[in-house]
Amino acid sequence: MSRKNTGINPQAARLISSHSRKLKTVDYYVDGIVKGDRVVLSQAITLIESETSAHRELAHQIVAGCLPFSGNSIRIGITGAPGVGKSTFIESFGLFLIESGFHPGILAIDPSSQVSKGSILGDKTRMQYLSTNAAAFIRPSAAGSSLGGVARKTRETVLLCEAAGFDIILIETVGVGQSETTVHDMTDFFLLLLQPGGGDELQGIKRGIVEMADLLAVTKAEGEQETLAEKSKQAYQNALHLFPPKQNGWTPQVVTCSGITGKGVSVIWEMVETFVKQTKENGFFEENRLKQRLLWFQESINTGLKERFFNQPLIREQQQLLESQISSGNLSPFTAAEILLKLFFNHHDS
Amino acid sequence: MSRKNTGINPQAARLISSHSRKLKTVDYYVDGIVKGDRVVLSQAITLIESETSAHRELAHQIVAGCLPFSGNSIRIGITGAPGVGKSTFIESFGLFLIESGFHPGILAIDPSSQVSKGSILGDKTRMQYLSTNAAAFIRPSAAGSSLGGVARKTRETVLLCEAAGFDIILIETVGVGQSETTVHDMTDFFLLLLQPGGGDELQGIKRGIVEMADLLAVTKAEGEQETLAEKSKQAYQNALHLFPPKQNGWTPQVVTCSGITGKGVSVIWEMVETFVKQTKENGFFEENRLKQRLLWFQESINTGLKERFFNQPLIREQQQLLESQISSGNLSPFTAAEILLKLFFNHHDS
Repeated sequence: MSRKNTGINPQAARLISSHSRKLKTVDYYVDGIVKGDRVVLSQAITLIESETSAHRELAHQIVAGCLPFSGNSIRIGITGAPGVGKSTFIESFGLFLIESGFHPGILAIDPSSQVSKGSILGDKTRMQYLSTNAAAFIRPSAAGSSLGGVARKTRETVLLCEAAGFDIILIETVGVGQSETTVHDMTDFFLLLLQPGGGDELQGIKRGIVEMADLLAVTKAEGEQETLAEKSKQAYQNALHLFPPKQNGWTPQVVTCSGITGKGVSVIWEMVETFVKQTKENGFFEENRLKQRLLWFQESINTGLKERFFNQPLIREQQQLLESQISSGNLSPFTAAEILLKLFFNHHDS
Repeated sequence: MSRKNTGINPQAARLISSHSRKLKTVDYYVDGIVKGDRVVLSQAITLIESETSAHRELAHQIVAGCLPFSGNSIRIGITGAPGVGKSTFIESFGLFLIESGFHPGILAIDPSSQVSKGSILGDKTRMQYLSTNAAAFIRPSAAGSSLGGVARKTRETVLLCEAAGFDIILIETVGVGQSETTVHDMTDFFLLLLQPGGGDELQGIKRGIVEMADLLAVTKAEGEQETLAEKSKQAYQNALHLFPPKQNGWTPQVVTCSGITGKGVSVIWEMVETFVKQTKENGFFEENRLKQRLLWFQESINTGLKERFFNQPLIREQQQLLESQISSGNLSPFTAAEILLKLFFNHHDS
């Protein structure tokens, strides 16, 4: 891959580097990433994850510079309840992809990491073969004070990984909350891993998550559990009939797999390939990516508005006073909001 | 009920009335509402539902004036899939409440009404006895371009109904989407109506909605369906064990009921009373209302920020241009958002 034009304003790049002598120029990062230098890639992702405003400003310019080289990958979201065997599966799936000539990049969104600072993928030994393979790139989940912040960082990291030549991006998340929607909104294909067991297990997964899935895979189809896994597959297949057809024209399937024996991994990949071929033909693939970019635009505006608002010390101070009046029941929440908004915009106008 | 102080600035009230000769003063509305005049109440709700800025400004002042007289009711959210028999139940439940000496106010949140302009409660003949009963007040659902807008209007309508003396507010919604969360966030007690049938029916209801419910009631427990309804009750009761305990210390129950025979209606009311007593004792009732007021404050700020942003013609115009650049893949959505935000705030500062 060669780099032609990063679209970066040279003056801005110089400004950044003079402001912070320790930071390299935008060109340094973009060049390094596009050449596939994984040390530079890691450094750039660290900038994306930083909360320092100089780092963030630089990171955005790196992302802008990498944008023309990004997008040429298949983005796969992988979710499942804790204990379903996500890392074992990803290890097995990732190694299969490498054998097939791909370069997988593996990221994670973990809402719990806001507290524990990275409980999934954090321990690289969980994927010992994959983490030492030069064809793969594993990045532990970004931490952040909000899911929105983590989402932004992950989206930007996807673009950088793509610019660095990683052609299949796996984004892992724990199937317990809001983060599945976030991952679904930034991927092309959504894989739901399920425990072998009775059909009741679907009740443990939010219905909305099942609706998002393009493929359901029953894990641990090995040894004594193989029969149970096959039975579960049947039960899930029957349950799927209760769901409405998907917008993308794709009919979700259920398969069994084993991260230990590698069973089902090639079938899963074939399904992904068929899905991509089919949705590229019917236009859904590009349409979905466009929708995701516009959604990201909307979310960035909303986040930016709230940040600028609540970063004002005057607003935060008045907010507390107003909240105590709301609490005592003397002030309508709507009126309080209007007071705060007027304060903000008058302050800005003066 | 007598009115002491509406907290309305007399000058503001005069300004409003001089701006728009057709509009009455804030005092006219607040006085009328607090006296229980349902014609004035209806007029004020129409102002709340109006999109005209003069009407909205006046409506907010009416809400502020009614605030000291509001809050003294039990707010009950009622949801269920289409066809479950919500209106028949509400008719029966409402008449029971009237016989018990209460004054129920019945409102609805209907996301589908954004298109059809009010498909639930819109047809008053659906509740023929209740709609002609002087002790009850029925208001068809507010329409609006967004669920957020409908939510604001419903919250404000609740306050006005309370100020007018309605002491039990029933808010109906259709169990198909996001609106259940909205109704849950503005009520004290959440009732989920379910069809008689196999235990599978729970799969047709989003898990999150079952988690929100304080009481599940199987409808149509009459005639031939009574046995089936009792069986379903057992199945739902068993399924409820799979759910985590509720924050409010309350254990949700399952009952059967019939809107036609009135069966179960008094039991449901007893459960509401027990719930209110218990949560008032353990502090959850007031704590929950406070949380709801602060949530409303946050939502009003977010809505207000977005409104002020996207109401600027310059922003809307540039947004379209930026979106076409995002679509063609030449501009990062984040960078586009930053450009738009800078434009907005520079414009405001100048």
